[in-house]
Amino acid sequence: MDEDTLIATVFAPLATDAGADGLGDDAASFAGGAGDIVVTCDALAAGVHFFPDDPPAAIAAKSLRVNLSDLAAKGAEPFAYLLALALPADCRGDWAREFAAGLAADQARYGVTLLGGDTLRASPGGGATITVTAFGRTGGGATVRRRAARPGHRIVVTGTVGDAALGLQARLAAPYAIDASHAEALDRAYLWPDPPVAAWRVVREFASAAMDVSDGLIGDLAKMCRAAGAGAELDLSAVPLSAAVRAAVAADPSAFDRAVTGGDDYQILATMPDGQVAGYVAAIEALGFTATPVGTIRSGEPRVTLLRDGHAAEVLDGRFQHF
Amino acid sequence: MDEDTLIATVFAPLATDAGADGLGDDAASFAGGAGDIVVTCDALAAGVHFFPDDPPAAIAAKSLRVNLSDLAAKGAEPFAYLLALALPADCRGDWAREFAAGLAADQARYGVTLLGGDTLRASPGGGATITVTAFGRTGGGATVRRRAARPGHRIVVTGTVGDAALGLQARLAAPYAIDASHAEALDRAYLWPDPPVAAWRVVREFASAAMDVSDGLIGDLAKMCRAAGAGAELDLSAVPLSAAVRAAVAADPSAFDRAVTGGDDYQILATMPDGQVAGYVAAIEALGFTATPVGTIRSGEPRVTLLRDGHAAEVLDGRFQHF
Repeated sequence: MDEDTLIATVFAPLATDAGADGLGDDAASFAGGAGDIVVTCDALAAGVHFFPDDPPAAIAAKSLRVNLSDLAAKGAEPFAYLLALALPADCRGDWAREFAAGLAADQARYGVTLLGGDTLRASPGGGATITVTAFGRTGGGATVRRRAARPGHRIVVTGTVGDAALGLQARLAAPYAIDASHAEALDRAYLWPDPPVAAWRVVREFASAAMDVSDGLIGDLAKMCRAAGAGAELDLSAVPLSAAVRAAVAADPSAFDRAVTGGDDYQILATMPDGQVAGYVAAIEALGFTATPVGTIRSGEPRVTLLRDGHAAEVLDGRFQHF
Repeated sequence: MDEDTLIATVFAPLATDAGADGLGDDAASFAGGAGDIVVTCDALAAGVHFFPDDPPAAIAAKSLRVNLSDLAAKGAEPFAYLLALALPADCRGDWAREFAAGLAADQARYGVTLLGGDTLRASPGGGATITVTAFGRTGGGATVRRRAARPGHRIVVTGTVGDAALGLQARLAAPYAIDASHAEALDRAYLWPDPPVAAWRVVREFASAAMDVSDGLIGDLAKMCRAAGAGAELDLSAVPLSAAVRAAVAADPSAFDRAVTGGDDYQILATMPDGQVAGYVAAIEALGFTATPVGTIRSGEPRVTLLRDGHAAEVLDGRFQHF
């Protein structure tokens, strides 16, 4: 399929906003309006962020969701995205159609629309690279920043932690002892991240600081500490785990380390005064997600102190990335 | 160089706007404000859009300029960009520093700033892929669209046509007879495109429709015809050529076909009522660029009729891409 046909038949139907001009122009436009426009750009490369034989719809969904997750963590309502799609020369038209079907489903799910972008031949020898730029609005409110975390504020994380990381381990043929039903749940978490995108409004209402957990809970909390110039205590016994991850940890305790340091969670890590926690948790639950307090921001050096059952287990400085 | 160090030492100095938050957050923000925000996203892949051993600063400049060219053609003032940089595992730190130096020079030249983006490992086996998303503002004016071309309106192109295409031919070791000084000029046109970015204000004031010439003058004019549902007459004898291209054409007339169909010109193709042409040309010249009338939009089928010395030379339909 040539590029013009690909754009006209596969991608133009996703470009429902007038500002996209049916993908028939060099650039798209949207009204500026009150408040901030929040923008984020995350790219995924075949063989690095996904397996080349993953379902195209799942690759599309992940490409979009990792960006919408960032917007939600900034308290911004997503409304549109741009897509730069670098495809190998041998890419089949079916692949592009299935990829676009994944985008279409997510457009309906999240209320966003394709504004424009680029299709290009991938660098010879390499696989597909998918770059999404996503746009949100704060609607007059402030953008929630990770550096705004304040000592004394509680740390709350949505969803469960570690599912995707253990799902990836299982894919890499180094599985922990995981039964079939749990393996399927973990694989699904890796392939189809489900960030609480709708939580953008709750984050904006309750959170002092927030970021999405994409590079591992502990590593990302350390990044928040660095940005805020503060420390954090993380209560490992409070970290929310799914039934599948709990089963893996029961069979092999080292799976816990993987769960709290591995990437691809796409949950929201937020801080807020203690008095806001109950309201935040209830509002997140009203959206069909969960949220769990897991620690406290402390003054001092940007270090993460790990607590287990109230006792300090380990201290990690701000440059910590993985066990 | 690890990713955190690369961002903190090489790219953060380019992120001078407060909304970029020093590249220390998941997302950037900017004020919406009056009028349209215009966005465009073009990506370049090693071995496809540039040679892997091109100077990193030139690759950086091309990555940015191909996007700023699109904004100028929409009558939008550029102000910021996002960068997603996929680098092979063996990429040297020096490469990234020279790349960033190219961006820094262009930031000063064009008045734009890095807002954010992503750095990632390129797909194994492939080379670098560079995706830029650029942002402009219309400041309350309308976005200039390619589909707004109207029958009777004159067609005007900035600069000269074909230099980069012949420069690429010379690089591919299939040179036309070109002497050394001309070869250098053509090579420079390929490596360092010089779109008339500052012309955004003139385009907005005078043009009824506009687009940048990136895929070849004739092919892009055909695209404008398709978008507008109109035909066009292009006077080949009026097409502005540089001294280097004229010399190549004198030595081998087939170089002319290459010049008017080859890509990478990054000039602005605009339409306007005949009475606006003199003012447009003068305003473009006042910015230090040139502009030349080359034809007329006609009612009817979206075809490009090529004229030479007033006589129809050939008729090409809207799907035309190359000779």
